[in-house]
Amino acid sequence: MRIEIICTGDEVLTGKIVNTNFSYIAQKLEDVGLDVRWGTTVGDDRETLLAAFVEAGERADAVIVNGGLGPTVDDLSQEVAARAAGVDLVLNEEWLQTMGEFFRRRGRTMSPNNKKQAMLPEGSEILDNPIGTACGFAMDIGKARFFFTPGVPRELRRMLEEQIIPRLLAKSGAPTAIRLKRFHCYGLGESHVDALLEGVEALVPDGSAKLGFRAHYPQIETKVTVRGADDADIAAKLTPVVAEIRKRLGNFILAEDEETLEGVILERLQAENASLALVEMFTGGQIAARLAPLPGAEHVLRRGLVSRDLNELWDALHVMAPAEISRDGAEAAAEAARSEAGADYALAVLIELDDGPDRIDFGGTICLAIAGADGIVDSRRSRILGGREWVRLGATELGLDCLRRRLYGLPVTERIDFERT
Amino acid sequence: MRIEIICTGDEVLTGKIVNTNFSYIAQKLEDVGLDVRWGTTVGDDRETLLAAFVEAGERADAVIVNGGLGPTVDDLSQEVAARAAGVDLVLNEEWLQTMGEFFRRRGRTMSPNNKKQAMLPEGSEILDNPIGTACGFAMDIGKARFFFTPGVPRELRRMLEEQIIPRLLAKSGAPTAIRLKRFHCYGLGESHVDALLEGVEALVPDGSAKLGFRAHYPQIETKVTVRGADDADIAAKLTPVVAEIRKRLGNFILAEDEETLEGVILERLQAENASLALVEMFTGGQIAARLAPLPGAEHVLRRGLVSRDLNELWDALHVMAPAEISRDGAEAAAEAARSEAGADYALAVLIELDDGPDRIDFGGTICLAIAGADGIVDSRRSRILGGREWVRLGATELGLDCLRRRLYGLPVTERIDFERT
Repeated sequence: MRIEIICTGDEVLTGKIVNTNFSYIAQKLEDVGLDVRWGTTVGDDRETLLAAFVEAGERADAVIVNGGLGPTVDDLSQEVAARAAGVDLVLNEEWLQTMGEFFRRRGRTMSPNNKKQAMLPEGSEILDNPIGTACGFAMDIGKARFFFTPGVPRELRRMLEEQIIPRLLAKSGAPTAIRLKRFHCYGLGESHVDALLEGVEALVPDGSAKLGFRAHYPQIETKVTVRGADDADIAAKLTPVVAEIRKRLGNFILAEDEETLEGVILERLQAENASLALVEMFTGGQIAARLAPLPGAEHVLRRGLVSRDLNELWDALHVMAPAEISRDGAEAAAEAARSEAGADYALAVLIELDDGPDRIDFGGTICLAIAGADGIVDSRRSRILGGREWVRLGATELGLDCLRRRLYGLPVTERIDFERT
Repeated sequence: MRIEIICTGDEVLTGKIVNTNFSYIAQKLEDVGLDVRWGTTVGDDRETLLAAFVEAGERADAVIVNGGLGPTVDDLSQEVAARAAGVDLVLNEEWLQTMGEFFRRRGRTMSPNNKKQAMLPEGSEILDNPIGTACGFAMDIGKARFFFTPGVPRELRRMLEEQIIPRLLAKSGAPTAIRLKRFHCYGLGESHVDALLEGVEALVPDGSAKLGFRAHYPQIETKVTVRGADDADIAAKLTPVVAEIRKRLGNFILAEDEETLEGVILERLQAENASLALVEMFTGGQIAARLAPLPGAEHVLRRGLVSRDLNELWDALHVMAPAEISRDGAEAAAEAARSEAGADYALAVLIELDDGPDRIDFGGTICLAIAGADGIVDSRRSRILGGREWVRLGATELGLDCLRRRLYGLPVTERIDFERT
């Protein structure tokens, strides 16, 4: 089945906003085994929209159109869709009522121009939007089934998942039962993960398990999709695959599915009823900023200390120590921070940057330590190269990941691919 | 002149990476007064690429193609471009030599498959890439001039600015002298800025000044482009426009052109040879993280303290104060942090979040204060609504912007559009 995506709107076409809706739709379709073949971006202009709809209708089997369903004069999708299909726009009483309810529940009055949002091409099928006034709809243009979606990301997401993907899977004739399983890793490069997982797809002999990777430094995501006749069939296929991936990627799996690194750290600290102190230098508060905004962090993140200057850190922590970073220094900083804050754990990430201007091989030496109320202090020394920002991102992730490892009883000093000696 | 953009590559088409190259190209063209009319995204597939090139060649006057110039087998742009134009691929000795130099200077050996990068469609014009091995080139396909660019963002950017935009401006026949001036604001919504600047374009009677806005919460960027016969003409037109914008947006302009909020703060502190201490709660280290990674911040950012819990803050700062936030409390926190760290200035941003789950009208009450070595303490109380993340972003920006105002002698308590009472 050939699927295309048409993104509409001057803000997207002029680059005023980055088109994250496109990548979202494409990824969601890939997750259920559907491929996008062509993407088109056009502005709020009748002739251009018409040309885009007609061309896609000639080429594709299914087309997802994003944007242009709002109440204002530059929202043209319904009007141009009707023209492309040679049908009239007609008032959809059902959606007008739905919108009326929507405004009443919020104690607001519907403005007259919202009525435009209930004008749909004759014969089109409504795609429900439970969280907005833009009515999604499906209709045929040329030989393709078109699905019109709102530009507001959260409305698009819900409509895509609940309304459109089931229809696309039914249309594609593929087994509609499919499951996506995701693993998040830190410390392995994409080619390394790829090599480690060689042959895993073959654990499902009928070819219905597919592996994919998405590297967004410093983390890499591994995705597995499995298709089957029904949930039981999928579970039977997925179980050995998941077990094998967990075995091969091992300690490097920091979270699965919707979990995050900071989330699993917070969860474990909450389960232990434990508190945390942080000491940062070049990461500059970014480690604290990953944890602090999470609900519940107010009871866990006892204290964070940031300074770019090591002597200033020693002053703040009331520690006498040399003015250069070392594993010993990191251990002293973690122990002092833990004791000053009265916290159960403390993570200290000390960094010494290379001299000179930023460049591709600019690096930093990282000494980090984790102290616990049990008296055990773990520490490691690493060098990360790749420019100031790369070092900052890498050190933030390394610090958080070592904390995760300590909390979950895993080795803190396991070598990672991004380290240089 | 009708301009189109074709983005190629499976990683973009599948949404594995978000297509920021597209928005970058479109914005850069808009900045010089050129409009993009159509965008196409296709994967690394010969037939699809060919169709995309041929269609764009029929519709457009100029086409920018991004990606597919690398050395591997899935980099197909040169090959398909030659096919679309009905010409042969020929070895470009000049580029082969350039690549040879490139590798020699880096002490590396050129791999045989790099030779593919010097195979260009017959008759094409080289677009220099001084920082990579992908050779840009221009050629005609159909009735359009095609410009082929590398997918690596920094290579694309340099080639677009140095090689392609001058050619497009020459082709468009528009006066090639154009200047872009940008203003960054915090605290004003887009419609408010739009209203404040009404009539400013008319200060240049021939219509050659254009205003545009780009809101990326919490900041909003105002752009002015002015065209003219030459630099002197542009300067004469731009001067009154810039003066008027500065007058109307006044204290809300936090930076211009390439400057950033954190950058102007650091610059001023450096000029005063002054140091800074920070106290954060729900912003969680994000204020520190904006300043800390900047070169030179190591001599300025004396100490940052983060805690989600107010009593913990009072402990850390050795202050006796009530367990609820207030302007008085913020002032006490700023003064204590300044004195503890021995810093010239301290900013304290205290936040009390609403109870309950995250929702669109979830809010936070912010009390912030700035203490200085001159004994003056400024403070303000604000409420920001819009969900947890909105509050966090808004409070970070509000804190930094109030610090900027204090450092530059501007009123710290000026009302902003995002505040609720």
